[in-house]
Amino acid sequence: MRKVVLAYSGGLDTSVAIPWLASQGYEVVAVGVDVGQPGDLGAAVARAETLGAVEARAVDARARFVETSLLPALAWNGLYQGRYPLVSALSRPLIAQVLVDVARETGATAVAHGCTGKGNDQVRFEVGLGALAPDLEVLAPVRDWGMSREQTVAYARERDLPIATTKDSPYSVDENLWGRSIECGALEDPWVSPQPDAFELTVDPAEVGAEPIEVDVRFEQGVPTGVGGEDHSPQNAIAAMGKIAGAYGFGRVDMIEDRVVGIKSREVYEAPAALALIAAHADLESLTLERELAAEKRRLEPVWADLVYKGLWFSPLREALDAFVALSQRSVTGDVRLRLTPGGCQPIARRSDVALYDDALATYTDQDSFDHGDAAGFVRLWGLPTRRWAKVQNRK
Amino acid sequence: MRKVVLAYSGGLDTSVAIPWLASQGYEVVAVGVDVGQPGDLGAAVARAETLGAVEARAVDARARFVETSLLPALAWNGLYQGRYPLVSALSRPLIAQVLVDVARETGATAVAHGCTGKGNDQVRFEVGLGALAPDLEVLAPVRDWGMSREQTVAYARERDLPIATTKDSPYSVDENLWGRSIECGALEDPWVSPQPDAFELTVDPAEVGAEPIEVDVRFEQGVPTGVGGEDHSPQNAIAAMGKIAGAYGFGRVDMIEDRVVGIKSREVYEAPAALALIAAHADLESLTLERELAAEKRRLEPVWADLVYKGLWFSPLREALDAFVALSQRSVTGDVRLRLTPGGCQPIARRSDVALYDDALATYTDQDSFDHGDAAGFVRLWGLPTRRWAKVQNRK
Amino acid sequence: MRKVVLAYSGGLDTSVAIPWLASQGYEVVAVGVDVGQPGDLGAAVARAETLGAVEARAVDARARFVETSLLPALAWNGLYQGRYPLVSALSRPLIAQVLVDVARETGATAVAHGCTGKGNDQVRFEVGLGALAPDLEVLAPVRDWGMSREQTVAYARERDLPIATTKDSPYSVDENLWGRSIECGALEDPWVSPQPDAFELTVDPAEVGAEPIEVDVRFEQGVPTGVGGEDHSPQNAIAAMGKIAGAYGFGRVDMIEDRVVGIKSREVYEAPAALALIAAHADLESLTLERELAAEKRRLEPVWADLVYKGLWFSPLREALDAFVALSQRSVTGDVRLRLTPGGCQPIARRSDVALYDDALATYTDQDSFDHGDAAGFVRLWGLPTRRWAKVQNRK
Amino acid sequence: MRKVVLAYSGGLDTSVAIPWLASQGYEVVAVGVDVGQPGDLGAAVARAETLGAVEARAVDARARFVETSLLPALAWNGLYQGRYPLVSALSRPLIAQVLVDVARETGATAVAHGCTGKGNDQVRFEVGLGALAPDLEVLAPVRDWGMSREQTVAYARERDLPIATTKDSPYSVDENLWGRSIECGALEDPWVSPQPDAFELTVDPAEVGAEPIEVDVRFEQGVPTGVGGEDHSPQNAIAAMGKIAGAYGFGRVDMIEDRVVGIKSREVYEAPAALALIAAHADLESLTLERELAAEKRRLEPVWADLVYKGLWFSPLREALDAFVALSQRSVTGDVRLRLTPGGCQPIARRSDVALYDDALATYTDQDSFDHGDAAGFVRLWGLPTRRWAKVQNRK
Repeated sequence: MRKVVLAYSGGLDTSVAIPWLASQGYEVVAVGVDVGQPGDLGAAVARAETLGAVEARAVDARARFVETSLLPALAWNGLYQGRYPLVSALSRPLIAQVLVDVARETGATAVAHGCTGKGNDQVRFEVGLGALAPDLEVLAPVRDWGMSREQTVAYARERDLPIATTKDSPYSVDENLWGRSIECGALEDPWVSPQPDAFELTVDPAEVGAEPIEVDVRFEQGVPTGVGGEDHSPQNAIAAMGKIAGAYGFGRVDMIEDRVVGIKSREVYEAPAALALIAAHADLESLTLERELAAEKRRLEPVWADLVYKGLWFSPLREALDAFVALSQRSVTGDVRLRLTPGGCQPIARRSDVALYDDALATYTDQDSFDHGDAAGFVRLWGLPTRRWAKVQNRK
Repeated sequence: MRKVVLAYSGGLDTSVAIPWLASQGYEVVAVGVDVGQPGDLGAAVARAETLGAVEARAVDARARFVETSLLPALAWNGLYQGRYPLVSALSRPLIAQVLVDVARETGATAVAHGCTGKGNDQVRFEVGLGALAPDLEVLAPVRDWGMSREQTVAYARERDLPIATTKDSPYSVDENLWGRSIECGALEDPWVSPQPDAFELTVDPAEVGAEPIEVDVRFEQGVPTGVGGEDHSPQNAIAAMGKIAGAYGFGRVDMIEDRVVGIKSREVYEAPAALALIAAHADLESLTLERELAAEKRRLEPVWADLVYKGLWFSPLREALDAFVALSQRSVTGDVRLRLTPGGCQPIARRSDVALYDDALATYTDQDSFDHGDAAGFVRLWGLPTRRWAKVQNRK
Repeated sequence: MRKVVLAYSGGLDTSVAIPWLASQGYEVVAVGVDVGQPGDLGAAVARAETLGAVEARAVDARARFVETSLLPALAWNGLYQGRYPLVSALSRPLIAQVLVDVARETGATAVAHGCTGKGNDQVRFEVGLGALAPDLEVLAPVRDWGMSREQTVAYARERDLPIATTKDSPYSVDENLWGRSIECGALEDPWVSPQPDAFELTVDPAEVGAEPIEVDVRFEQGVPTGVGGEDHSPQNAIAAMGKIAGAYGFGRVDMIEDRVVGIKSREVYEAPAALALIAAHADLESLTLERELAAEKRRLEPVWADLVYKGLWFSPLREALDAFVALSQRSVTGDVRLRLTPGGCQPIARRSDVALYDDALATYTDQDSFDHGDAAGFVRLWGLPTRRWAKVQNRK
Repeated sequence: MRKVVLAYSGGLDTSVAIPWLASQGYEVVAVGVDVGQPGDLGAAVARAETLGAVEARAVDARARFVETSLLPALAWNGLYQGRYPLVSALSRPLIAQVLVDVARETGATAVAHGCTGKGNDQVRFEVGLGALAPDLEVLAPVRDWGMSREQTVAYARERDLPIATTKDSPYSVDENLWGRSIECGALEDPWVSPQPDAFELTVDPAEVGAEPIEVDVRFEQGVPTGVGGEDHSPQNAIAAMGKIAGAYGFGRVDMIEDRVVGIKSREVYEAPAALALIAAHADLESLTLERELAAEKRRLEPVWADLVYKGLWFSPLREALDAFVALSQRSVTGDVRLRLTPGGCQPIARRSDVALYDDALATYTDQDSFDHGDAAGFVRLWGLPTRRWAKVQNRK
């Protein structure tokens, strides 16, 4: 009998997928991967066996997620279309890797995910799986059975499946250590503002006291190692930053984004840790990266974010880009002071032992060491091409 | 006798420049250009004659500034290094144009500006003047006389020049309709946060009441024509937006930036109108620009911002880029709802008659018109190159 | 009965498509579009009626092809992956436009093309048709019937279809005014060099006499208007250039290219006119385009080539890019001298009334008008960021 | 007494520089660096002592030049403005490094070069020296003494300096293992074609017999290791390729280029080895680099070429880019067959054990393993954004 490893979240779709896959003649190994989502993954995984899985296991991938996914994302200031910190896009490749590991271990010949046909996650899973294990069959039961959400619910009710429906959320949510995405329901109308019940990681700014606070963030070679004056492992730094920023109502994103499959969708995110750390990290880079390196890195940042968003994590381009960024981060060491206001977050000070800022050059006082005479020649040559252009135009 | 047209701000440097230029054998025509800065330009200009100008005039360039400079900047979501809305960079080319106009009218053979040798404005003036009037001599007395700020003050005191020193600001400030830059003094240390006295357009977020407000902004083909439900001319829309956002403490920027002359400098700005309008405009573009056009425009936005920052306003590249952006803005019509919190500003809703968002495609309900079967084929071909790559790698 | 407009080439696939579409219940209107391919299009179209078309017509689209497709391609120096001058990619959108025109005129509700499922042309047709006429049904019989080339031949033989098989070419060929592509057969092995019989527009360089020739090409605002000292319409200039360069064995391209559908394919082209004109045009741009405009145009050239290759001709991005390029071409007026050797083509001289080259600046003689003193200041400031970087690194 | 290390070429300018520097109070250490230029460097260096140098030495830097400069340039297919293989731009940083090494060893406090104020080499020397040794004084006697070429000759004659003027070349030439640049004289007029006497590495194509030849080039991880069926060290592969291509008249470039100092100049180069190897290398990449990696690498290639051209070799950006390219070259292993015609060079076949080309996918025969059904879904989703755009436009 064929064995399939299913990426199991405990939610409606992947729960229904277990009996459905079994009905197609598969033995199902259900794997729940802990990337920092809330809820009792152990209980969920236990339920998978009740639903008919021959085996079910939970894998704690949090430390690996930080190391292999979140730190590179931070080094790249990774934001898709300038705004979305790639929350789910970062976890899917890691989950794909775990699926492949379990398939190898259990002798499965197939892997399965619970994504629909219009989202991005199917792309991330399938392209990732194709790169990691081109020999494995990939099943997408939710896409292939063609049931709408309503029909899936009916399928579960008819069969009396033990689905967790305690909290009947109007939203479809994905969460991990880097943030949380909220979709569906009323949010499908882009002219309707998100309701307060959509958010869990960020307090409503209206509920935050007016007094701003200041938080210092420390980076060593691009890696966050301190928040608010305390030393932290990177994973704890992310958690600490998320708590502080979320408590100030900072980190919400409400955007229209272009999905890989060609449609525009309205997406709501909250990612207080990711967005505050990126703000601090980018600010420290402005102090410590040489001008041309900084400019090229800024041009490459959306390239990296795009490829991760579009499911090309396991591609030679990502490896090559990550070699570039690794070099760039050697000097990104120092402290940034963030000022948090209700719903806002701004760097207001920064320092570094390897700062490229030079007071003696920048000052307008008597201490000035900049040779102003150099500037005249510089400006004349800098403007030479347009001056020549203008002369030729005028001559016409 | 040679005649020079001086860009006159009424401040210390350009005031001292008048007697200094006269001492070099020039007749000085002082021109104050109103681009929305505060203060009594008429009084300042009158003082210029006392200082020795043979002629002094004020030119109201505000409407022209909006039309030729600020609307293109908004269409481009123009931010240097992702943060600075180009406040002074936008006004300098227009002032250069006014200087040339006055030089032609008065028969002057030279123009002069009061910039130092380490800032960006000398570049913008001189490259602009070289493009507009390659025949005119360009003088930069402040750069050339080599006096520090302290020495300039001493020069004025010795000669008893009628300089306005009523409010002895610790900062060097430039302001126009698009925002305000604040430099020098304590701000030269990037680890020292700006003091409250640095800001005039934005209230301290700590002083703002906690209750967020929502403001609708309307654009017609990329041009702001309504704020808060009221119709406005673009100039008034900018002013209205600035007042609302400034009252919420939004619009401050504190950054390290790479100057044209190769040094890093710490810069503090406040630009509530510019930053709120850019947030709204970019959000509306996400709803109304086709994916590939939007992606290429995002790549070109820093190109435009860079060239404006670096003084190449009067270059054929800007003309060509502006032809690109003009086409793109034809469909940027609609409304965006901004939510302002103390120090924060976020789009939370948007709509347009030409929205490319399509509910029937985006929904997860039974109304879904997206063919999920298409996705499987799409994903397989999208992942084909990396799958092939992985196969070849594994074979090795 | 449903009516379909078929893009009819007279070749095997589209000939077989006529009876096949009829068997599916369609009335077939066959349209042959003349974009400069060889052969008797009238005779081919007449044969379509014998094959069962209810109507057949030939449309001469050559002048329109030059104006709307080839001149923009030349302005962009359009080369996919730096080598392929987009021959077929340029004709497909125009043919799609003709199909839609005929469908509107004849009341057809469908259009059909003869492309397979692994080539690029299906993408160009279908994306183009979707943009031009989203209401029309699009049929791809050759892709959908799933017959291999061998099976298609068998289908025709069994039914005794009057297919032109006089010259049993081992290749699959597409040709128009801009060049010719040659695929299939022995060329599918990338380690096998093309045989002489693959080429028709270019003489084998081994057959060309050794003596190089020189040809002057004239452009007015980016449009070729003279070749070899004679004035020409653009269409004739293209033809004249093609003859001269082809006779010297210049214009062959042998490459591996990335298709839209994700596979690498080996492609052989000959495009003597396109490649010689692009060489001349790009050279003239180096003389007449201002530095920054030229640099940005070079960055955008592959963007334009990519979107055309990938079927996005009827996209708002192309319109916006074409507005950019139109501005850039205003000054691309002048003459370029090409030197043709067997299989080679090099610009060896160029001149323009609006040349930005300035002898007085460029000379190393006594006539030098360049201020060498400016350079020292320029170089110091240009190198300031790396010098500062090095100082900080050394300090560590 | 202050000691200066002079980059000594044996030519007019650096010969005159020795007594001139001495007259300014310096002890001159003359260093000739062998990067593959022709001529007797030992004799030239000996002459330096006659001219007044306190010490003179020749340094053979050829192996180091290949390893640190030419192989990266080939990996990047490095061409400035798409045409110039960076010949001199590559040698200057290495020479700067040698100067610094000698200065450290001899206790010199200054280094000197013989560049003028309008070329690029001053930038490469001075920015490089500033990065390597910010403490050393940098002298540019030729730029600073302000003598024209005529005046320099006069200076030498008046003082009876033992300058090598045996062959009174009308050109200013720079040569190394990667190629040769030819400037000045009649070449300053861009409408005058170069005369045969300008070239030494390439035979006039008119003198080459008509019969094309084919040459196989082998690369291992991007490094050339075989030419014409024989194994070679990289340095010998470069030499062998240069001989073969030069004998076929291939490798000449005649172009207008934008110099760093803002002027356009007419430049003539011959670089048979560089251009033939780049053609072969780029072709092999098209077979072995994954699509997205290849696309991004092509975008970065001009970035690398620009920074090398502009003197930023010793910058952190180059290090980061070189980390990117190193990853990319891991799979660039295989053979390319070049066909040389008089003045022309084309890849006509290529193979690799790690080729990403897949016959089973690419073929149009019965062996086809591509699922044509996938294409329909792919094309529909690929065209979805423009189709949606068109629908909204039509609705208006």
